[in-house]
Amino acid sequence: MIRKYVYGTPFDTEAVVGAYDLGADQPPWLTVSASGRRFSCPLEEEDQVYGLGEQVRGINKRGWRYVSWCSDDPYHLETARSLYAAHNFLIVTGPTRTFGLFVEHPGRVTFDIGDTKRDLLTIETEGEGVALYLVEGGGPWEIARSFRKLIGRSYIPPRWAFGYGQSRWSYFSADEVRQVAAGYREAGIPLDMIYLDIDYMEGYKDFTVNTEAFPDLAALSAELKEEGIRLVPIIDAGVKVEEGYPVYEEGVSKGYFCQNEDGTPFTAAVWPGWVHFPDVLNPEARAWFGDWYRVLLDQGIEGFWNDMNEPAIFYSRARMEELAGEKEKRMASGKTEPEALASMREEMGTLSNRLEDYRSFWHNTPAGPMRHDAVHNLYGGSMTRAAGEAFARYAPDKRILLFSRSSYIGSHRYGGIWTGDNYSWWSHLLLNLQQMPGLNMCGFLYTGADLGGFGADTTEDLLLRWMSLGLFLPLMRNHSTLGVRRQELYRYPDSRAAFRLMVGLRYRLLPYLYSEFMKAALRDDLYARPLAFVYPEDDMARQVEDQLFIGESIMIAPVYTQNAKGRYVYLPERMKLVRFRTLERWDEEILEKGHHYISVALDEVVFFLREGHLAPLSAGGACVEQVTAEDLTLLSFGDGAAYEFYWDDGVSTDYTDPAHITWLRAGSPKEAFHEHPGN
Amino acid sequence: MIRKYVYGTPFDTEAVVGAYDLGADQPPWLTVSASGRRFSCPLEEEDQVYGLGEQVRGINKRGWRYVSWCSDDPYHLETARSLYAAHNFLIVTGPTRTFGLFVEHPGRVTFDIGDTKRDLLTIETEGEGVALYLVEGGGPWEIARSFRKLIGRSYIPPRWAFGYGQSRWSYFSADEVRQVAAGYREAGIPLDMIYLDIDYMEGYKDFTVNTEAFPDLAALSAELKEEGIRLVPIIDAGVKVEEGYPVYEEGVSKGYFCQNEDGTPFTAAVWPGWVHFPDVLNPEARAWFGDWYRVLLDQGIEGFWNDMNEPAIFYSRARMEELAGEKEKRMASGKTEPEALASMREEMGTLSNRLEDYRSFWHNTPAGPMRHDAVHNLYGGSMTRAAGEAFARYAPDKRILLFSRSSYIGSHRYGGIWTGDNYSWWSHLLLNLQQMPGLNMCGFLYTGADLGGFGADTTEDLLLRWMSLGLFLPLMRNHSTLGVRRQELYRYPDSRAAFRLMVGLRYRLLPYLYSEFMKAALRDDLYARPLAFVYPEDDMARQVEDQLFIGESIMIAPVYTQNAKGRYVYLPERMKLVRFRTLERWDEEILEKGHHYISVALDEVVFFLREGHLAPLSAGGACVEQVTAEDLTLLSFGDGAAYEFYWDDGVSTDYTDPAHITWLRAGSPKEAFHEHPGN
Repeated sequence: MIRKYVYGTPFDTEAVVGAYDLGADQPPWLTVSASGRRFSCPLEEEDQVYGLGEQVRGINKRGWRYVSWCSDDPYHLETARSLYAAHNFLIVTGPTRTFGLFVEHPGRVTFDIGDTKRDLLTIETEGEGVALYLVEGGGPWEIARSFRKLIGRSYIPPRWAFGYGQSRWSYFSADEVRQVAAGYREAGIPLDMIYLDIDYMEGYKDFTVNTEAFPDLAALSAELKEEGIRLVPIIDAGVKVEEGYPVYEEGVSKGYFCQNEDGTPFTAAVWPGWVHFPDVLNPEARAWFGDWYRVLLDQGIEGFWNDMNEPAIFYSRARMEELAGEKEKRMASGKTEPEALASMREEMGTLSNRLEDYRSFWHNTPAGPMRHDAVHNLYGGSMTRAAGEAFARYAPDKRILLFSRSSYIGSHRYGGIWTGDNYSWWSHLLLNLQQMPGLNMCGFLYTGADLGGFGADTTEDLLLRWMSLGLFLPLMRNHSTLGVRRQELYRYPDSRAAFRLMVGLRYRLLPYLYSEFMKAALRDDLYARPLAFVYPEDDMARQVEDQLFIGESIMIAPVYTQNAKGRYVYLPERMKLVRFRTLERWDEEILEKGHHYISVALDEVVFFLREGHLAPLSAGGACVEQVTAEDLTLLSFGDGAAYEFYWDDGVSTDYTDPAHITWLRAGSPKEAFHEHPGN
Repeated sequence: MIRKYVYGTPFDTEAVVGAYDLGADQPPWLTVSASGRRFSCPLEEEDQVYGLGEQVRGINKRGWRYVSWCSDDPYHLETARSLYAAHNFLIVTGPTRTFGLFVEHPGRVTFDIGDTKRDLLTIETEGEGVALYLVEGGGPWEIARSFRKLIGRSYIPPRWAFGYGQSRWSYFSADEVRQVAAGYREAGIPLDMIYLDIDYMEGYKDFTVNTEAFPDLAALSAELKEEGIRLVPIIDAGVKVEEGYPVYEEGVSKGYFCQNEDGTPFTAAVWPGWVHFPDVLNPEARAWFGDWYRVLLDQGIEGFWNDMNEPAIFYSRARMEELAGEKEKRMASGKTEPEALASMREEMGTLSNRLEDYRSFWHNTPAGPMRHDAVHNLYGGSMTRAAGEAFARYAPDKRILLFSRSSYIGSHRYGGIWTGDNYSWWSHLLLNLQQMPGLNMCGFLYTGADLGGFGADTTEDLLLRWMSLGLFLPLMRNHSTLGVRRQELYRYPDSRAAFRLMVGLRYRLLPYLYSEFMKAALRDDLYARPLAFVYPEDDMARQVEDQLFIGESIMIAPVYTQNAKGRYVYLPERMKLVRFRTLERWDEEILEKGHHYISVALDEVVFFLREGHLAPLSAGGACVEQVTAEDLTLLSFGDGAAYEFYWDDGVSTDYTDPAHITWLRAGSPKEAFHEHPGN
């Protein structure tokens, strides 16, 4: 049951599309402040808190104060309050009650989950106008599904987007892109996507191509598609201020950019230098911006990633004008010139993503003009929506790949997200795993982290361990930044066989992974499931923070510490350990319920099969299009195991045809019986 | 066996005081480059690498490139190359050979331990002149002890310094200090030290006291000492440039500050504003600077912490003068004023701890003038030495507490270190544990991290878990920075009993912990021992990165993940689990060799006793002076267990009197038999 409680006049974020009742009086469990901005409830010793999507710390979010405020902060430290997204849904579950809570409010929201006081949850919005949705009925898993139903079906990408992708800031030319493709092909490692970071553009101008470096993007795209590889370019939020650049000129003439209080376009600096931000909260401007993606679609591009859309601001023009004469002012008050400049260190160090700048510009929304900070958290997701809505107009029957850095609940219907600019840290490998269930609860199924880590030098062993997690996650992309050690897998000759196994196994497992993804998307379910949800009665399972169920059959337990030869794994029931040593050779071992230390060599992939379940394996392929659902091998544990297998053409949007469902049943090992529903 | 190999003309860091042979020809195992600056050796798959003291990552240092370059970097991230110290000793151990390597070189040294190539160790110095000491004979533990013998006895603090200390940046007045003392006494939590951070000084001037806030430091010190609490003030490296300030004036007139190339004192900005750095590499200047500590010793102060001595530089005067007119220059070349200022963001963001600044000033060393970067890593440790040598002159028979942020091997004879400005991160709790063995190998026994974390808001559960590690470490200090959540233990009423247990247990265990420390110091042994050293034949023990032996009898395995109710522990042999629920009530349970999941509540302390060993428990006390070695309770596992107990007066420097040793033997549980050697 879902009930909505309204405080003040909430801004309609359009997050909710499903049914709910209007709550009478006040919500149960919560104390609501007179202001209608603060909601609190006591936490019992055994309570756990799930959700919040893209945030730091564990699967259980208890013990920290999180702030929903979309932020370009690459460090993702334990003590970060905010990452790129605002996912205001959480679940409180304990011995006496379980409920979900969605705080529909597009401004800053603080979730103090037993941080200030260990036994108190307090949620507070900065601004007024809150719609609160209280979800009840069943355990945490049921609550998560009910909420997902409320917010509508998650974005579904084309199947090729479940392939492996290679990214780098940047591949600077068509030739460099060709070398990456060749590197993978020659190493025998499958590849489906090569990502283009900001340098494919001319002067970082959205919807342009640097034709010196990429003389014919359409031809390059077609050439690579012949090999099963798609180019996925980046689109940034900021539109460069440049006379003669049509996106800029049209946006200005139509009034489609975010505005200063005086109605002039707000100007900030990001990669292109001075930019304006398209007002994607204005439906007309959103449609206009979305239509620009056609420039690239028409060159054969079928996927995009939206970036810098918190929106990130290096500095605003207004702030830099304020500081321009500051040195002289301070000299006039008696400082020497070096002292005056030195005294500006703090101001010069805090120019980026300043709250004061976010308070200085405006949107034209359907609800009237809104100052940016009041709707800040909708910006990035609305850029995704701009693209998603445009794709639906342009090619309604075709899936286009789309994912974003910034997001809010609601934008999960238009695109996926990646978890932003992480680091080549072992702790971020674990964070990658821990973020998945919360993201799924908040609607983001097509998601993943930059494998190997974006910032800082990766190490070969970290990359190996991270790939052996990444192969199970929907968005499987290896990405790294300017100046750090190269991360293309073919560059590590000693690990080539291991990477061939890890990426190759992704393609062998694709029927299972894709099927689980599609069922999760179509049934408002989780793809990545915490053990706490699957075994809510098992006190140990409820504590496990480093294992996940991937769909119904497979439990993963990646190694995430350097120099470790294995790790501890908790089995909440008897399971079958599956150890892949090569793509064709694997061992199976049945392990009893309980605690185990499992050895996992750097060049192996180990996972666990749940009893009574199975997972179909394809013969693999060099790209997703080569993977078929014919001649599946069934990994199974238990003779009677059956599996509801979803398989479609992977590109069209006719998801619900019953013919997409087949039942697979384990007979003798490695033998599949296909059976249509009703047979 | 230790052999020394010389390349070029090494600077004598005075790290080595013990015996060695001169190696003939070239060292075994290593390939030495023609330049004499690069040393490499292949790493086998099973090789592990230990040592490097204060560095990031695991106990086993394999898999990263570390740089010895003392750096004021508070983040201590996984991808940090350098922390505050330069500890150039490592041990390579594997199936075919085990050896230690000390690279005596006071400039920048890179240790690439299987990072660039997984199977290659490469050590390279930036400058010329290297003395290489190769240590062989026995396993890694024997190698560590041989090396420790080479570098001389580790610093020994007074016994009261093994009490618990509370610190904060800052306690701003005598009254605030009194409140802290009263807070602890009223909560019934023992306390031995209150630390004074930079605000006790007048204008951050070393050896001055802000007499408005601290009207009579001597009286305050005496008053607190009556309660068993000592004040421990900070001393920073930089001496404020201020006419009339005698440290500044004397230093200038005697030429005792580091100098620019033209012989004028080098000027940089740190907390006091412009400062000069005392040239502690010049023995005369070192003696002069050390003598200034008497100003505080004469006010009853008996302990100090030396800070900012990498030396940290916010910016140099020369650099700020360079940048002063830069905006105007850039405007002259066509930029608007805001653009010109904006273009200086990078320069303004990279002012601190610049290599160019470290290359711009000079020391007068016994070997002649040396540019700072060539001897950079000696600076902080030489400041410690300045104090330590002064104390030995001033009060040769008395122990003075002294520890430093920056250090090098050699300065371990003069003082301890703390591991610098860490963060309130769970990962830094684990790092605290992982750094201990390497620090011990490099001579630093009196050491520890800021418990609860220095930077960012701690959480109550993190503080609880960290205290239950900290109670086993020699330097047990809780410290936090300006503006973050208060960390004084008495401020957490719900955890008061738990903190009383954790700190109280420190005092109950003091006979054991102090005895183990003293034996480690006097016998060049490790206080904190990796399981890999204790059980070198046990492949699983060699991998354990989150447990330690504290001395011979106790193994610790702290919980270091949020919301965990316990953790996995590996027992390399049968052990006795000891679970303290209150100071008086504990359970014992014998566990078999192997893997165990152990529950540990937030308010408990759990550790393990090795079979055939025992640990004496005192009755505790509110401060160290109240702890006696009378009526010891013996925690023991095995009836015949015996323990060599070291106990002295805790303040004098007559360490080696045989009367300090007593043998304790376990008879019936909780009953001690004292026995003098030879009885």
